[in-house]
Amino acid sequence: MSDISLETSTVPLYHEVADRIIGLIDSGTYPPGSRIPSIRMLSQNLAVSINTVREAYWLLETRRIIEGRSQSGYFVRRRIPARPSTTFQTDREIAPRVLDPCTLCTAAPLPDTPYKGWALALGSPDPKLFPVRALSARLAAVAREANPSSVAYAASFGMETLRREIARQSVEAGIFLSPEDFLVTSGCLDAISLAIEATCLPGDTVALESPAYHDFLALLQSKGLKVLEIPATSEEGINLDVLEWALANHPVKVVLSIPTHSNPIGGTLPEDRRQALVTMLARRGIPLIEDDTYGELSYAGPRPRACKSWDTDGSVIYCSSISKTLAPGYRVGWVSGGRWHEQLCRLKRLYSGTAPSPTQMAVAAFFRDGNYSRHLRQLRARLAEQAGAMSAVIAEHFPSGTRLSRPHGGFFLWVELPSRIDSMSLYEESHLEGVYFRPGRIFSASGAFGNCLRLCSGTWNPDVEAALVRLGQMACARA
Amino acid sequence: MSDISLETSTVPLYHEVADRIIGLIDSGTYPPGSRIPSIRMLSQNLAVSINTVREAYWLLETRRIIEGRSQSGYFVRRRIPARPSTTFQTDREIAPRVLDPCTLCTAAPLPDTPYKGWALALGSPDPKLFPVRALSARLAAVAREANPSSVAYAASFGMETLRREIARQSVEAGIFLSPEDFLVTSGCLDAISLAIEATCLPGDTVALESPAYHDFLALLQSKGLKVLEIPATSEEGINLDVLEWALANHPVKVVLSIPTHSNPIGGTLPEDRRQALVTMLARRGIPLIEDDTYGELSYAGPRPRACKSWDTDGSVIYCSSISKTLAPGYRVGWVSGGRWHEQLCRLKRLYSGTAPSPTQMAVAAFFRDGNYSRHLRQLRARLAEQAGAMSAVIAEHFPSGTRLSRPHGGFFLWVELPSRIDSMSLYEESHLEGVYFRPGRIFSASGAFGNCLRLCSGTWNPDVEAALVRLGQMACARA
Repeated sequence: MSDISLETSTVPLYHEVADRIIGLIDSGTYPPGSRIPSIRMLSQNLAVSINTVREAYWLLETRRIIEGRSQSGYFVRRRIPARPSTTFQTDREIAPRVLDPCTLCTAAPLPDTPYKGWALALGSPDPKLFPVRALSARLAAVAREANPSSVAYAASFGMETLRREIARQSVEAGIFLSPEDFLVTSGCLDAISLAIEATCLPGDTVALESPAYHDFLALLQSKGLKVLEIPATSEEGINLDVLEWALANHPVKVVLSIPTHSNPIGGTLPEDRRQALVTMLARRGIPLIEDDTYGELSYAGPRPRACKSWDTDGSVIYCSSISKTLAPGYRVGWVSGGRWHEQLCRLKRLYSGTAPSPTQMAVAAFFRDGNYSRHLRQLRARLAEQAGAMSAVIAEHFPSGTRLSRPHGGFFLWVELPSRIDSMSLYEESHLEGVYFRPGRIFSASGAFGNCLRLCSGTWNPDVEAALVRLGQMACARA
Repeated sequence: MSDISLETSTVPLYHEVADRIIGLIDSGTYPPGSRIPSIRMLSQNLAVSINTVREAYWLLETRRIIEGRSQSGYFVRRRIPARPSTTFQTDREIAPRVLDPCTLCTAAPLPDTPYKGWALALGSPDPKLFPVRALSARLAAVAREANPSSVAYAASFGMETLRREIARQSVEAGIFLSPEDFLVTSGCLDAISLAIEATCLPGDTVALESPAYHDFLALLQSKGLKVLEIPATSEEGINLDVLEWALANHPVKVVLSIPTHSNPIGGTLPEDRRQALVTMLARRGIPLIEDDTYGELSYAGPRPRACKSWDTDGSVIYCSSISKTLAPGYRVGWVSGGRWHEQLCRLKRLYSGTAPSPTQMAVAAFFRDGNYSRHLRQLRARLAEQAGAMSAVIAEHFPSGTRLSRPHGGFFLWVELPSRIDSMSLYEESHLEGVYFRPGRIFSASGAFGNCLRLCSGTWNPDVEAALVRLGQMACARA
């Protein structure tokens, strides 16, 4: 963690202690099954309070990394090795690719109605984790007022009352902008679609993390753009060395990135490299489209500062939404477009007009009353628990040789099965039993990730657990 | 009116009587100021009931065409000559044009906050004419339920409950389709934007009525398309002879049309030419994007059947919304995309995801309870009155030589000032006094319509009337 990040956010001490233990486990000092130091001993060794260590161990238990056994102490659980931090994947060619719509979009279709193992394939948390009653109460209050402004066209860039709350909320990401700097959109994908439209012409090349969110690939394909996939890992996000090499060797028009808890691998670019990324692009006059939708969902440490917070010349187009944190169905997202902001406002007005008024008003009221921060704390804790529980089930039921990401937030787990298992053909089998997931191959135009899969840990209940166990059995049968 | 239209809709007899009188006034049989036959006499002459004639005269009074004077009978009011039905405007070249964004979008800016004469420039009725309380009550009921499905992602093509109501409502336009044939969008412009995206590539040519809705021109410009403007009149809509000639002589990819109460001239293509239009395009394999947003707002006769009702091979992409009839701020529109429907669904999902759930649910409930038809009847009557009142003020206060459209529905009046008056320069003067309107030049890429203006009759109150009178004075000073 860099000095910069410590200036703006203080990591609770118990997080640091927990990270220290994880490091010792990862390095093999404490292998699976072994006992780790007692609370009292570690407190003395690290010169921190008993309480701090207790909280650290509680965090590690929550994340299913250790388990307490009565009278015996704390033990390392059986864990799956984390995906290694590959640096430069020399087996894959780094070059712009024209996307083939067939492989991307028709592969691995998802039914439109819930089913037993359906939630494993989703891209958002269980709606039960959202404060449905509190938010609905705000909407009911807006509706009861029956103000003509609730049915009239809103200002095309969004209601001022909401943009003010968005500006306030963005301070948490280190972004200090005024309400006028934000445009309300219909979710984050709308913001990104507008940003792409404002900065690219058909035939241009867009660089993005690989594996990449499959809807990004489909969006770029539909706009006639080429993609340049830059290797990323679940530990460190996009590889800046490869990106720099790619910028020097290919005509990249825009970089599109999810720097925090990315989709699909849950990778996070360390804070000390974010400034380097922003500077690298600004120097070349290349816009960075930053998708910060998962930024509020850090559960193993503080919320990382957004890349936008280092933007000095308006070259970062910052996009976010409440779709992963509060209410996907409200379709409220936003963008702060830097140099392109005026153009984004114009395109938004032309393509779909304003965002709906009542939902904007309800979200603004919810934010204003201070509910959002409280809700986020609860949501993060639940997501951490669920990711831990799901990781434990994978450790127990998936084939030996499986590797698993260890995200610090969000709700995606990235699974690497032994290389001989093809996840697309696993999907062909599993979805007949109602067990869905996202096969790795849909996250790239390169044909890579054939043995990988993306699982959503946003929903956790006995049905989902049973589906996951069954998926593990099917994978084992192929191992 | 063709046989076909009489099969599906019966014009009330008093409308026919009123039309007969208008014909006699237009032909000069009854000049302004002259007395028309008494109710009793006309009842005998036409062999219709006294009541029928009374209703016809009431309609003509409402539309400010005649006035009753106590003890003396009914007299023709001073009227402005209707805009002549020009056929082929030989002074304007019919050829594809590349649009210049500057003249289209930065011209005649509109402030974002209401002001005295602001409503004259708008593109929707006064929100006070909408059933705000009834619709808000439906939204409050949805919110009170606090169903998780109200915050979760909806099916990407829209909620089934709403699509069912849309399918029912479309029967009024002669369209018999099932809920699965509709995709819910964020207003009509979203539908049209998706339709353009699905059917065109940059550099293609789109044919549309001229004068054309300025946001259509801006949308096409932003997508790198050329426009081919086909003359249209407020009486008869698009000129099919010119269109046929244009299709034979230019590479038209798509025709985009508002066949009913169009924006900006309020023109309506007669029903007996709609089938010809659909057939002409289907024969050439050219899709018709039909914007039927104003279709429900016919006040001088029955609602015309949509072009889509004659579509036999899926070549009509039908787009509509509630933005002009119920709640612009709810952003609920829809499209039935014929052959392109699947592609539209895919693009919608990629670009902005689903439409918001709560507003979809509220609109569905409002439709289901049968409120929409009742509301539309009241709205049409008010729009007819307002158009009449505004026409009368224009007749009294605008320069001699002014010509005015006589729409049969919607809420736009198209004014042709004497040719020496430039409406853009009039705008430069009037907007300093808070009197806004849409200068004719923004509705074309050809530089035509310099002496024209579009006025919105959707709002009528003393402030708007004062602004209109003032505008007339400023125009007179230039005459």
